[in-house]
Order: sequence, then structure tokens, then C-alpha cells
Amino acid sequence: MEKQVLGGLEWRVNVPDGTSELPAPERSYYCKPWLALKGLVGGLVARVLKFLEKAWALAVLEPKKVIHGIKVGIALSLVSLFYYMRPLYDGVGGNAMWAVMTVVVVFEHTVGATLCKSINRATGTFLAGLLGIGVHWVASQSGEKLEPVILGISVFILASAATFSRFMPSVKARFDYGAMIFILTFSLVSVSGYRVDKLVGMAHQRLSTIAIGTSLCILISMFVSPIWAGDELHRLIHGNMEKLAESLEGCVANYFKDNQSGHPSEKDNSNKTQAYNCVLNSKATEESMANFARWEPAHGPFNFRHPWKEYLKIGALLRNCACCIEALSGCLNSEMQATEHLKEYLKEASMAVCSHSCNVLRELSMSVKTTTNSSKLQLSVGEMNFALQELQNALKSLPTQLILQQPLADESNENKSTTTKERAPPVIGVIPLATLVSLLTEIAARIEETVDGVVKLAELAEFKASNEEKIAQNQSASKDQSSDNPSCEAEP
Amino acid sequence: MEKQVLGGLEWRVNVPDGTSELPAPERSYYCKPWLALKGLVGGLVARVLKFLEKAWALAVLEPKKVIHGIKVGIALSLVSLFYYMRPLYDGVGGNAMWAVMTVVVVFEHTVGATLCKSINRATGTFLAGLLGIGVHWVASQSGEKLEPVILGISVFILASAATFSRFMPSVKARFDYGAMIFILTFSLVSVSGYRVDKLVGMAHQRLSTIAIGTSLCILISMFVSPIWAGDELHRLIHGNMEKLAESLEGCVANYFKDNQSGHPSEKDNSNKTQAYNCVLNSKATEESMANFARWEPAHGPFNFRHPWKEYLKIGALLRNCACCIEALSGCLNSEMQATEHLKEYLKEASMAVCSHSCNVLRELSMSVKTTTNSSKLQLSVGEMNFALQELQNALKSLPTQLILQQPLADESNENKSTTTKERAPPVIGVIPLATLVSLLTEIAARIEETVDGVVKLAELAEFKASNEEKIAQNQSASKDQSSDNPSCEAEP
Repeated sequence: MEKQVLGGLEWRVNVPDGTSELPAPERSYYCKPWLALKGLVGGLVARVLKFLEKAWALAVLEPKKVIHGIKVGIALSLVSLFYYMRPLYDGVGGNAMWAVMTVVVVFEHTVGATLCKSINRATGTFLAGLLGIGVHWVASQSGEKLEPVILGISVFILASAATFSRFMPSVKARFDYGAMIFILTFSLVSVSGYRVDKLVGMAHQRLSTIAIGTSLCILISMFVSPIWAGDELHRLIHGNMEKLAESLEGCVANYFKDNQSGHPSEKDNSNKTQAYNCVLNSKATEESMANFARWEPAHGPFNFRHPWKEYLKIGALLRNCACCIEALSGCLNSEMQATEHLKEYLKEASMAVCSHSCNVLRELSMSVKTTTNSSKLQLSVGEMNFALQELQNALKSLPTQLILQQPLADESNENKSTTTKERAPPVIGVIPLATLVSLLTEIAARIEETVDGVVKLAELAEFKASNEEKIAQNQSASKDQSSDNPSCEAEP
Repeated sequence: MEKQVLGGLEWRVNVPDGTSELPAPERSYYCKPWLALKGLVGGLVARVLKFLEKAWALAVLEPKKVIHGIKVGIALSLVSLFYYMRPLYDGVGGNAMWAVMTVVVVFEHTVGATLCKSINRATGTFLAGLLGIGVHWVASQSGEKLEPVILGISVFILASAATFSRFMPSVKARFDYGAMIFILTFSLVSVSGYRVDKLVGMAHQRLSTIAIGTSLCILISMFVSPIWAGDELHRLIHGNMEKLAESLEGCVANYFKDNQSGHPSEKDNSNKTQAYNCVLNSKATEESMANFARWEPAHGPFNFRHPWKEYLKIGALLRNCACCIEALSGCLNSEMQATEHLKEYLKEASMAVCSHSCNVLRELSMSVKTTTNSSKLQLSVGEMNFALQELQNALKSLPTQLILQQPLADESNENKSTTTKERAPPVIGVIPLATLVSLLTEIAARIEETVDGVVKLAELAEFKASNEEKIAQNQSASKDQSSDNPSCEAEP
């Protein structure tokens, strides 16, 4: 019986609903610590389970990350195996520890990051070792009293200078890790210089173990299901274009959907519409990916000197677009509401601008994705501008309607107003629509800037010609006719 | 003579103006490689000089970074000294290298980051050492053949799992470095387990050297001109508020300044107006600072459990504002221009909204900066909303003017138009102003959200009462009168 009660109480402690206080405190006098312990363990287990659940969700969502973990495991096991083999062990010596350390520290998620860290580590170690041995030789020549002073001062100056240099943007972007390794190696070499005489031999061993570690990392990261930083950046950029198109479409469609349903609460504020947030927050990722991509050799459609900087520019232009879409979505969801008939009047033209803008974005995305010059891009841009012109024309012919349906403030009782149910203040009802038009215009302008950015990227990265272009070129070659740029033919 | 010519040529090679080709090629036949070398060295020297110049500029701009470099130098020199002292050296053994390594790796720019890395390093090493020794003991009990298999598999599994866990957001934010050190130590312990028998002794030595290194780092970073991550975050947030106020003011003032000067090119597109870009790009810094600030002990006005997360929320709200200001500045600089008399008509009301919005932002900034409840905050918010109402009222009374000055499209020759010089299409001229009003309304709404965020922060962080509040409280206490919230008295 007592045990059953305890069992029941255990459950009540584990459930965090505030009812864990016991109704009979005198009876549970002995089991309180036991219960507290149980609760603690239960809470811990629940947290661990929750953590594992999250980890599983992440693993399912991004299996690449699991593969990366397995790759690191393989590399470390290989190094251990290498260390275990006596003949090699005798060759490399107790410094084999450095190979293990190199693998752990250098193996990064993308090939570019691994290469960057490997090269930084190797050159940092080499330069600092050279300098350390030099300083150590100078110190040893200058007598026993001066030796520690020279070493101490040189460590102080070099460590301070190298640490400060890590704040320089140019160093931070490419050689941050190298500077740290430089400080580390220099300090170790000069400090160990107090004891060890065979500095050169030690340096040789150290470098060879680092070479083993880094080459193992580079090989595994490049040949076992490689994750290229360039690929990731490329995917991020064209994915962001898709996202912008989605959220622009969703945002405008939501606004005009009200019309039919009449329930603003039914609006589809789903993740798709909020996708611009991802774009706004992608700056840091883009920059680090572009930094790492520069270290990568040619892979897939990318050469060694692929213009990664252009991606950063396009990313910035996309963030500009996203900013505008964010403001648009804010303004459309605000309290000021447009007069219904005006909304209906501009609906078609606005939707047209929106869908043509989205077309351009999707065309851009496809062009970047397939690294192909899009034949339809200029056509789409033309259509977008034409739709924008139509929208502005629609607005220009608006006042007549506006005045026909709204009584003037001064001449309030004239019989110009045929529909009397519309009674919103005249201009207030136009404001949201004017904002919509203004922001759509601005978004279209920014999309055009992005088009320019992509065109420049296509030039620099030598995108493939599209099928239509190829056919056109073949035709013109076979007919010996000179044709102008075929992709511009459909400009309005 | 030859030397003089060479000297002259040297200069020409160093100047990068494309004139370095020699007018007399037959004479310089011998000195070409020499010149190339000189040019190379000259270029290198120029680059180094440029780098040093930039470094100097950075040092002048942010002397804190120089101080950080010097602090690292001091810490490393101290560790070297420590290592140099024989008695201590005999105690800690050859592992003293780990103290140097710890200092180099753990010493970060802010106190919080140093603490975070120190604690991560210590706990990671401790846990992994414990687990490594345990696994090693199990392996050694299970026979010579199974031993390497067990060790290899355990290294593989733990390294894979720990590497994967570093991708989990919760781990990445706080324990990223600890996970890496865990993998490193576990691999080293189990691999060295093949050779070293005195594992426990080694572990003890390792931990003590790490303790020496970390405590030295923590002491120096906390007591020698400390840089607190919390302080930096705090400064970033209230600085961003100032920047938003500046750029909003500049943006609207620029728009209406056109009126007088008539030259759009004269607009003041200076850094101040573009300050919102800093705000848009500050997300990554804010997040890392908030992460590090959580590790910091109480300092200045901040307790140990200061609500740093609220700063992140306020930061996000400020970025929302910045987005809107960005869109506003884009729309105002676009091609569509408002009719001049309309612009003039709305100028005063718009400027009032803008200046009151800026007042609220500055009030918020001051409140956060001084960690004081602002007595004028609610008053300013009230004024802002009142000005907004005025602006909307001004717009409501607009149609009369609009129609009086614009001929209708259908009845084009009526004599309603008193001023004939204004001939812009009727509604097109309103669009930019409607957009301005709409975006100003949206910005004001977002500023109000920020106010709520700051009020919540003030509650959680227990901001000091303002002087006015104190006086009011004293008065009410002395007169024994009950007064309502004195800072809300001026709500419209």
C-alpha cells in the first residue's frame, strides 16, 4: 500500500502542473528527499529525451550534418589507427598527439573551411617556428642573463601585435586562425627553447604530424560526400530569390484575399509569407561561406576563381528587396484600410505587377541555379515594367472614380454619389493603395538592380548560353545572318 | 650615372600609374630582373605600409583593441615566466605547454567570452578525461585483441556524436568550444592510453595546468581594463536607437529640404542618414554578445541574471524599424515626385511626426543608457501619436485642395483650377506623400512596440526611478496622498 502511494506521488512530482504539494505531509516525512531525487532524475531524463528528440529532428532535416559527424569520427579513428601502428609511431614519435589535435581542430563542416584552417595552421606553424628558432638563436648568443629578457620581450611584442592584427577586417576574414596558431607556436617554441636543444628536429616532427593531420582532413572532407562552401552559398542565394518571390506573392495575395472572405483573421500568415525574414538574416552566413569558398578548388560548375564576391553583392541587393517586402507587409496589415471599391479597382493591376515581379525573381533564381543565361529574363523584366506602367496608369485615371463615388467635403449634398454605402474619408482610403503602388514600384526597382547584379555575375562566371540562344546562334550561323541579341527581342 | 638612372627608374616602378615601361629597352637589358625584383619588393613594402596605416587607424579608432592585444601579451609573458621558474616547473612538469596553449586559445576580447571558453575548456577536459579513463579501463580489462577495437569504436562514436551535437542551436550557443575540447581530450586520453600507464597522474597534471592558464586569463581579463560583453551589448542597443533617430530625421528632412534648394543632388546622403544600415547588420554581434554576457558576473549596473534576452528582443524590434526607414528612404528618393503644393501642405505635420518619433527614440536611448525609468517617455509617445493624428487629419482635409487645384479628367475645361502652373496628374502627385504618411505611421507603430520592449526590460532589470518619480513619491509620501502613475499624466 505504502509503495503504491509512493508510486502515485512519484507521478505527481514528475508532472509540472503545480500540484506536487502533498495533501498528507506528515506521512511523507521520510520520502521527501527520495521524492526530490526522483523528481530531479525525472527532470534530467525528460530534458535529455527532449534534447535527443531535437537532435533527431535536426538529423532528419539535415542529414549532411550527420554525415559530417561520421566523417570526423572516421578521421579520428584513422589517426588513432595510424598512431597504433608501431613502425609509423617510431617515425613520428610522441608528437603524434599533434596529428589528433590537428584533426579535431581543423576538420570543419565545409571543404573551404577545412582548407582555410589547414593552410592557416600549416603556414602559421611554419612561420612561427622559423621565427621562434631565429629569436631563440639570437637569445642564446646574448648570454645567460639577457636570454630570458629577450625571449620574454619578443613573446610579449609578437603576441600583442598578432592579437591586435586579428581585429583587422582583412586578417579576420582569411587569417584569423593562422594568427592564433602563429602566437601559439611562437610562444611554445621560445618557451620550450629554455629546455629543449633539438628544436629543429622537434619542429620537423611537429610539421610532419600537422601535415599528416591536415592532409587526412582535406582528403576525407573533399572525397567523402564533400560539402562545398561555394555550393552552399550558391544554393543560399538562389533559394533566397525563391523565398522573396514566395513572400511577395503571399503578401499581396493576402491583402486582396480579404475582399472575398472578409475576415482579416483568415489571412495566411504562414512561414511562406514570412520567408523574407530568412533573407534578412542571411548576411553572416553568406559572408562566411564566401570567405571559405575562395579557398576551394574547382568543383561542379565553379572554377577556382569563381566570382564569389558577386554573390555577396547580389545577397545585399536581395536583402534590400526583403526590407521593402517587410515594410509592405507591415503597411498592408496596418489599421488603415483602403476603400473596398478602390481596392477592387486596383486589384488586377497590382496582382499583375506582383506576379511579374515574382516571375523575374524566379527567372533569376533559375538562371543562377542552373548557371545558364536565361533567355526569358529580359522579357520578364519588360513585362514587369509594363505591368508597373499599367498600374500607374490605373492610378492616374483614378480621381474620376474617386470623386464620382465620394461626396466632396464642401458640396456634401450633391447627387454625384451614386453608391451611398461607401462613406470612408476620401483620401484616407487611397493611402494604403498608394503605399502599395509606391512600395511595389520600389520593389520592382530593386529587383531590376538584382537583375543587373546577376547579369554581371553571369558575365564574370561565364554562365552557359541558354538553349534558345544556342538555337538562335546555330540558325544565324547556318543562314549566315547577323542577328542582334536574341534574348532582348521581346522588349515592349 | 647608371645608378642615378636606376634610382629614377626605381621610383617609376613603384608608382602604379602604368608608366613603368622603359623608353630605352636595349639599355635596361641587364637590369630587368633587378627592376622586377625591386618592383616586387616595392609593391610588398607599399602593401605592408598600407596595412600598417590601416592598423594605426583602427588603433586610434578603437584603443580597446590595442589594450586587448597588450593584455594577451602580458598573460603569455607571465605564463612563460611561470614556466621559467624551476620549482614550479618541476611540480607541473612538461605539461606546462598546456598552460601556454590555454592562454592563447582561451583569452578572448570580452570577459564573457573568456569565461565561457575557460569554463567550457575546464569542464570539457574534465568530463572527457573521466570518460576516457573509464573507457580505457574497460578496454584494458577485455583482452589485448579487443582493446584497440573497443577504443577505436568508442572514439568513432563519441567523436561523431559530439561533432553532430555542435550543430544543435542550444549547444552551439553555449557549449560549442566545450564539445570540441571534449572530443580532443577524449581522443588524446584513449589514444595515449595505448602507451601511458599513469593516466590519472597525467590527467591531474593536465587539469592543473589548464586551471593555471584559465585563472590567469580570467584574472587579467577581469581586472586589467575589462571589456564586458554586457556593456558592449548595452552600448550597441542604445547606440542603435540613436542611429535610428538620426537617420529617420535625416531622411525626412532631406525630402522636404528639396523644396527650398530644388536640387535633388544636393541631398545629404551622408553616413548619418544611412546609419540604419548599421542597425540592420547588427544581429550577429548582438547575439554573440548576449551569449557571452550571460556568463559574466555582476558588473556596473548589471546583475548576474540581467535579462540579456530582452536586449535581443529590443534589437529585433529596432531592426524592424530600420527596415521601414530603409524602405522610406528608398521610396522618397524614387522617381515619382509629389506635387509641390501638396508637399508644402503636409510638410509641417510630417516633420512634427518625425521629430516626435525621434524624441521617443532618443528618450528610449537615454532611458536604456542610464538604466533609469524615463518620466518623459509616455509623454513623448503621447505627443507622437497626437502628431500622427494631426497628420492624418491634414490628409483627410486634403481632397478639397486637391480638387480645387487639379482639373478633372472628364470636365477638363471648367474654371475650378485657380493656379494653372500645377499640371501633374492628380493622384500620382499624392502617392509619395501617402507613402510617407503610411510609412511614418508604420514606423511610429514599430517605435511603440520598441517602447513596450524597453518598458518590459526596465521592469525585469529593475531600472532606477527617475528624479521626477522620486520627487513625486516623496511628495505623495509626505502629503499622504495617493497619486496614479505620475509619468502617464500627459497622455492626450
